[in-house]
Amino acid sequence: MTDVADTAGKIRRMEIRGAGRIARVAAAALRDHAYQVESGDIAGFMAEMEKAAHTLVLTRPTAVSLPNAVHTVMLAMEGTNTPEEAKKAIAARADSFIRSSEQAVGKIGEIGARHIRDGDVVMTHCNSEAALSCLIEARRQGRDFSVFATEVRPRNQGQITIRTLNDAGIETNFIVDSAVRSFMNRIDLVVVGADAVAVNGAVVNKIGTSQIALAADEARTSLIVAAETYKFAPRTIFGELITIEEREPGEVLPPEIIDSLPHVRVRNPAFDVTPPEYIDLIVTEEGAIPPQMAYIIIREYLGWDINEFNRH
Amino acid sequence: MTDVADTAGKIRRMEIRGAGRIARVAAAALRDHAYQVESGDIAGFMAEMEKAAHTLVLTRPTAVSLPNAVHTVMLAMEGTNTPEEAKKAIAARADSFIRSSEQAVGKIGEIGARHIRDGDVVMTHCNSEAALSCLIEARRQGRDFSVFATEVRPRNQGQITIRTLNDAGIETNFIVDSAVRSFMNRIDLVVVGADAVAVNGAVVNKIGTSQIALAADEARTSLIVAAETYKFAPRTIFGELITIEEREPGEVLPPEIIDSLPHVRVRNPAFDVTPPEYIDLIVTEEGAIPPQMAYIIIREYLGWDINEFNRH
Amino acid sequence: MTDVADTAGKIRRMEIRGAGRIARVAAAALRDHAYQVESGDIAGFMAEMEKAAHTLVLTRPTAVSLPNAVHTVMLAMEGTNTPEEAKKAIAARADSFIRSSEQAVGKIGEIGARHIRDGDVVMTHCNSEAALSCLIEARRQGRDFSVFATEVRPRNQGQITIRTLNDAGIETNFIVDSAVRSFMNRIDLVVVGADAVAVNGAVVNKIGTSQIALAADEARTSLIVAAETYKFAPRTIFGELITIEEREPGEVLPPEIIDSLPHVRVRNPAFDVTPPEYIDLIVTEEGAIPPQMAYIIIREYLGWDINEFNRH
Amino acid sequence: MTDVADTAGKIRRMEIRGAGRIARVAAAALRDHAYQVESGDIAGFMAEMEKAAHTLVLTRPTAVSLPNAVHTVMLAMEGTNTPEEAKKAIAARADSFIRSSEQAVGKIGEIGARHIRDGDVVMTHCNSEAALSCLIEARRQGRDFSVFATEVRPRNQGQITIRTLNDAGIETNFIVDSAVRSFMNRIDLVVVGADAVAVNGAVVNKIGTSQIALAADEARTSLIVAAETYKFAPRTIFGELITIEEREPGEVLPPEIIDSLPHVRVRNPAFDVTPPEYIDLIVTEEGAIPPQMAYIIIREYLGWDINEFNRH
Amino acid sequence: MTDVADTAGKIRRMEIRGAGRIARVAAAALRDHAYQVESGDIAGFMAEMEKAAHTLVLTRPTAVSLPNAVHTVMLAMEGTNTPEEAKKAIAARADSFIRSSEQAVGKIGEIGARHIRDGDVVMTHCNSEAALSCLIEARRQGRDFSVFATEVRPRNQGQITIRTLNDAGIETNFIVDSAVRSFMNRIDLVVVGADAVAVNGAVVNKIGTSQIALAADEARTSLIVAAETYKFAPRTIFGELITIEEREPGEVLPPEIIDSLPHVRVRNPAFDVTPPEYIDLIVTEEGAIPPQMAYIIIREYLGWDINEFNRH
Amino acid sequence: MTDVADTAGKIRRMEIRGAGRIARVAAAALRDHAYQVESGDIAGFMAEMEKAAHTLVLTRPTAVSLPNAVHTVMLAMEGTNTPEEAKKAIAARADSFIRSSEQAVGKIGEIGARHIRDGDVVMTHCNSEAALSCLIEARRQGRDFSVFATEVRPRNQGQITIRTLNDAGIETNFIVDSAVRSFMNRIDLVVVGADAVAVNGAVVNKIGTSQIALAADEARTSLIVAAETYKFAPRTIFGELITIEEREPGEVLPPEIIDSLPHVRVRNPAFDVTPPEYIDLIVTEEGAIPPQMAYIIIREYLGWDINEFNRH
Repeated sequence: MTDVADTAGKIRRMEIRGAGRIARVAAAALRDHAYQVESGDIAGFMAEMEKAAHTLVLTRPTAVSLPNAVHTVMLAMEGTNTPEEAKKAIAARADSFIRSSEQAVGKIGEIGARHIRDGDVVMTHCNSEAALSCLIEARRQGRDFSVFATEVRPRNQGQITIRTLNDAGIETNFIVDSAVRSFMNRIDLVVVGADAVAVNGAVVNKIGTSQIALAADEARTSLIVAAETYKFAPRTIFGELITIEEREPGEVLPPEIIDSLPHVRVRNPAFDVTPPEYIDLIVTEEGAIPPQMAYIIIREYLGWDINEFNRH
Repeated sequence: MTDVADTAGKIRRMEIRGAGRIARVAAAALRDHAYQVESGDIAGFMAEMEKAAHTLVLTRPTAVSLPNAVHTVMLAMEGTNTPEEAKKAIAARADSFIRSSEQAVGKIGEIGARHIRDGDVVMTHCNSEAALSCLIEARRQGRDFSVFATEVRPRNQGQITIRTLNDAGIETNFIVDSAVRSFMNRIDLVVVGADAVAVNGAVVNKIGTSQIALAADEARTSLIVAAETYKFAPRTIFGELITIEEREPGEVLPPEIIDSLPHVRVRNPAFDVTPPEYIDLIVTEEGAIPPQMAYIIIREYLGWDINEFNRH
Repeated sequence: MTDVADTAGKIRRMEIRGAGRIARVAAAALRDHAYQVESGDIAGFMAEMEKAAHTLVLTRPTAVSLPNAVHTVMLAMEGTNTPEEAKKAIAARADSFIRSSEQAVGKIGEIGARHIRDGDVVMTHCNSEAALSCLIEARRQGRDFSVFATEVRPRNQGQITIRTLNDAGIETNFIVDSAVRSFMNRIDLVVVGADAVAVNGAVVNKIGTSQIALAADEARTSLIVAAETYKFAPRTIFGELITIEEREPGEVLPPEIIDSLPHVRVRNPAFDVTPPEYIDLIVTEEGAIPPQMAYIIIREYLGWDINEFNRH
Repeated sequence: MTDVADTAGKIRRMEIRGAGRIARVAAAALRDHAYQVESGDIAGFMAEMEKAAHTLVLTRPTAVSLPNAVHTVMLAMEGTNTPEEAKKAIAARADSFIRSSEQAVGKIGEIGARHIRDGDVVMTHCNSEAALSCLIEARRQGRDFSVFATEVRPRNQGQITIRTLNDAGIETNFIVDSAVRSFMNRIDLVVVGADAVAVNGAVVNKIGTSQIALAADEARTSLIVAAETYKFAPRTIFGELITIEEREPGEVLPPEIIDSLPHVRVRNPAFDVTPPEYIDLIVTEEGAIPPQMAYIIIREYLGWDINEFNRH
Repeated sequence: MTDVADTAGKIRRMEIRGAGRIARVAAAALRDHAYQVESGDIAGFMAEMEKAAHTLVLTRPTAVSLPNAVHTVMLAMEGTNTPEEAKKAIAARADSFIRSSEQAVGKIGEIGARHIRDGDVVMTHCNSEAALSCLIEARRQGRDFSVFATEVRPRNQGQITIRTLNDAGIETNFIVDSAVRSFMNRIDLVVVGADAVAVNGAVVNKIGTSQIALAADEARTSLIVAAETYKFAPRTIFGELITIEEREPGEVLPPEIIDSLPHVRVRNPAFDVTPPEYIDLIVTEEGAIPPQMAYIIIREYLGWDINEFNRH
Repeated sequence: MTDVADTAGKIRRMEIRGAGRIARVAAAALRDHAYQVESGDIAGFMAEMEKAAHTLVLTRPTAVSLPNAVHTVMLAMEGTNTPEEAKKAIAARADSFIRSSEQAVGKIGEIGARHIRDGDVVMTHCNSEAALSCLIEARRQGRDFSVFATEVRPRNQGQITIRTLNDAGIETNFIVDSAVRSFMNRIDLVVVGADAVAVNGAVVNKIGTSQIALAADEARTSLIVAAETYKFAPRTIFGELITIEEREPGEVLPPEIIDSLPHVRVRNPAFDVTPPEYIDLIVTEEGAIPPQMAYIIIREYLGWDINEFNRH
């Protein structure tokens, strides 16, 4: 049972980051967990798996990809009659999900790369696999461009981003989050990832994204979002708001400082919401779409239906 | 001579921060320096003082208050005939400048405090004496309000700000710079300081200010700037652009990381420019003014004249 | 025959108000009317019904739901051979339309209620069943929020709205229509209904709605529209503009005043048009959608086709 | 003593309306009152006059013209030694204030009329002497234009306005306050009055003005404010906020309705604030100025000084 | 073979202009060319046709309709076994394409005409068949309106437009391209054509269109785009940017002037990009749609699929 | 007398262009004319001069500099007693006006040049001496930048501009007026001249300027106006609107085309109005100012007074 608990812990502590990686790790954890469960009867097995699934889903409430991954893998048990059968089905589904998730990033990279032209200056925020895939692919195709990457307080994911870009040989400028508007007039394109996309095309992503989008809009700079279709949040069709996780104060200020300031409270939301009017295009593995087309993605690609919600 | 060099060093390394404090420390350093100069003839004394003045002025090119303070103190030597006479004149002028600078902050606090109403939520950025004076005075008058203060990367001046606010018993929320837009809809008033005010009312202040102003404008939140009249930049009448200081990469990233990333360059501008259309009011010790009235402040209060520039 | 004439009169004089109620009353009037028609042959019966249908449709040219209701009920006659058969079909269809229309409001309430959070201040305009359903449902679920409701000149429908809200125990503020922008900075969410939705997501609703939407947009306040799918106007796909009804001057000024002012003319449009860029979401009984998805609603849910128009 | 009390009552109950008329009536009331005061010694006389002045000033806290008028008249007592002398001085000053106030409106009319061109459609709100003066003067000069006038809930001052316009033979359309945005696209110019002008050019005027200004800005329609210089609010230089009077609920809803709705509260602010960026020009009797020039009007024409405030 | 070369030349030199006409002429050229090819075997015939197709497609890289027309006609050869068979298939397909393309313009005219009301002032730019069709049809139906048409430098297509409008008896004003914003406040509706529509609803059209759209947006003037569905650019789903053709300097300046100015370079882009937020509606022969619905047009009407791109 | 008539003709036919050049030529024409007048008595002389002055002023109603120049020169006659004395006074004043006007352009060049930085891309419109002076001076100081210049239909003044820039060795791109928005994202600074500046800072300049300013504002590109103080229009304080000259249709279309199109009318306004909110700074020979400071320029530098207007 340690595997799932361990994975859940790593997701919760953000040792595993990035919605795609979280989704794949969760799928893998369920697969591995299935083989560790003592094989009693199928009902007991399923109950054990449900417990594990819940443990995983609860680690990051806003990571839409996490419940989607878990849901997809868990559905594989339907119609199986023995734990052994179920284990095989789960393993097959998890592996296929992981593979298609990895290909999604590659396809997004291909499509997004076409938006990067020679001589462009591109800004990115946080450390999104899908967004970076666009940059790396454009570079691989020989496009000559440079990047501005932000620090991404409080957990400084920007430091991972610049290492990736450096390794790809892309000229990169590293700035604090406050300096975004200062440099925006020389930026040609902003490329960011997404943690979740709502039915109206609003994008939930790392805190700071909406501020960058606002500054881009002010300077007539294009902004594209790189998002796998499993990031689109089905329950927003049913009116559900996407919960914005608020993380530990200790990420922002050392506990001893917090303790010494009785009138001070740290507020640490992990994400913010970028409205669709600041987004030019969302690049998914199914093609580039205007943000408002999120509704079609949820209905057509993800196959959700309003009546499905009505049943719950 | 060590005094001036030491003060200059502290200003350069930002151990002394805040434009008002820099101006007063510079005035005091000149005063103390005058008494340390070996008293030869008046010409030699003046030459020594000019050298000290230059040392100070060069530490922070965008700190308009610094040359203003130095210029004011140095002018006291005019018409003196002996080093002794000059020393006395310098000391008197420096003391008077320091006193009036300190009163400016108090007067600004009185005026600005009137804009804070019971129940308001106020946001501030960086660690501006003048801006904090408005908050502290409003609190002293019994007004019940709370504050959002930003971290202010890369040097985290926000940590000083929240200590000051905590000590005044003001309920304060501490957020990373990226979270500004996330909380803006609940903010009633933004109060920031200024490092310099241009002739058209554009305000140069700590990096991140213009981003906050943009987010405030988007949410119809009022923004006022607290600025002593000595922050208004005379040479902008003559077309001169205010230089935006770019500081050490080491403030943003540890040198060993920078060294390991040959394609990465840290960009670290200390200030940005907020356009006048995002500013509702500038509060000076001479009264509240619309930003466009900066021209009148420079011409009338600071007494600058276009022909004066033409002479240089 | 009096029934239909009476209902038509009540709709015309706005004694029956609200698009949903109008649609249901019209359906019921046709049903009742069918039983009052002297049963000659089927052709004569149909001709009588057509006359009644026309009478109803002409009472409110902009009420999209009215012709939709009438059209739905009238279609039930297709394929019937005797007046008796037709009467039964009409009654069944009218009852089913009324039931589904009533459920639409309930479903919209469930979806919309999820957008209202504890502590929110919500603004509403006019007296929309669907919009109020969101508020009442949120209250029923124990959510603690307050409301600002407008007077809605010239017929003061706001007075009905505040009575409904008062009866639900919701703290409500009542303001004149001119005070909307004054209070907008403290509003978290605007919820309004719709009389019609055009193919591009523009919403036709009670005069004043577009002004509220503009003020909400200026203050970064979200606005959602609660609209049953039968409010979506099919003929806008074919380019038809939605007619804005202009009502009696006497609603605005007493006739004796109008008569005494030969140079004065009262202009009394009953509705205005809110552009899609001021609308965050339209909540329908089929789920929440971005306004631009109106085209899909008309094509997919309402089943209209461009060729259908081409036939006419 | 009844005169002042009576005048104060009429101002409070809005039987006397319009800032200019209030100012002149207050000046006249003080003049008449002076002659009614029993002539004891000068100190007693002055104390009586102070009481009367206070009574008047307190009736309408946001009417900047009222304290300005009272202040001007009261200053006439300075240096007088007997009640008789004081009475004469007061009478002379009051008469001169009334005359110059009346001429102000005329001069504003001349200047503002030049902005109205043949064929224009002009919108106005509430019942401002200065704004109407521009329209009447343009008409007197033979200009051919038409007007849209709003109802101005809750006290319907628009009904007075349309009577005035009708009597001048100007074609006028009368609309509810909610219909402003509906007609804005055909409006060429908005002309409104002001109750007060703040130091940064923000204009306090009848509730609804800022909404009209917003809709004008959205449609690229020019807006000019007609304001006598005595409407400029000196204490805003010192940071003081202009109080927005909130009037009786009974103006909006009949008491019996209010009493029957325990969860409903009427909010009835009499004024709102239009930001300077929505104002093209303020027309004063001293010439047309950009709104930001309010500071110069207060300092130069009204002669206020920051130190004056510091003394209090 | 001269026919194709000749047609290609005329398209390249803009002697044949307008995307619809280009498409139809290209289809016709292929048809005629087929009959001129010496009939060897089918493989040789197809190779000849491919060469001709390439010649045509390369003349105007941004004219989406051109490759669409060519592609449609060329597809007719699939499954044919002899040159004779292929020739017939090509001829039939070309004729049907030409006919449906001509009807598209007519249907667009019918739909768009409904947006023109009596008394309207309509602006148009360049010389778009589809846009003019709306105007002509509205006139044919007796609508009374006037037009502002632009010059359209550097090739002055506006001169053709005003001749067409004049012949239809429509009152027309002719202005230089720089005067657009000057007259925008009196314009009720802008109607333009499109050379290509991207997946997110951005419209590529004659240089100057986006400037007109910006000025329309500033003045709250509606803008509709008249575009046949074959103008929607399928490869934008796959991320491809629409190439903006840059034409000969000689169109803008005489060669002798260019030669005399070594530091001067003429930049002559033929098209620009109007973002979807400036477009109220796109009128296609399949109905009016919001610009964001471009994705559905490409997927549903044009039948493109992301996997199709993935194959190439 | 031919001199004045000849000059007037050249100004009217735009053979003499640019407000500065017009002003200086008018001053010179009056000076030369004075010496041609037959010397009768002083009254007759003055009458002759008045006639000449009128002839000149009427050639270009919107050229504020023209009446200013004429007025300045004519004032020199005041207090002279003989034609000989008057001739000398006129000659002296005209020469001094010409000199100071020429120096104004130089001073503006010095101030404006400071806003052009190495690497900048600057856009200019029409052929303004003052605006070009900023570019030429920046170049003279060794600054490395490039320029986009517009064609400026209908009289193609851009062709003169690019010749001047070419001769200064500045890399220049020449574009049609419609292409402004297409290139705006790569522009760092727009520099234009002015024909007149209104009291609120609105700038009247060559048709197309306001469109460029709008596109610059949309892209967060700075725009500065280079304007001699004699361009500020005094009578706008008194409410007077600046007349926008409408020039000959023949400038836009050949007469034979116009004649062949009975329903077509050419509209050819020579100027448009750029609102102050799109202008960052106005550079005058008295220093850089925010546009709203126009009022101070008119009152303080040009010495106009509201009472002066009241006298007329």
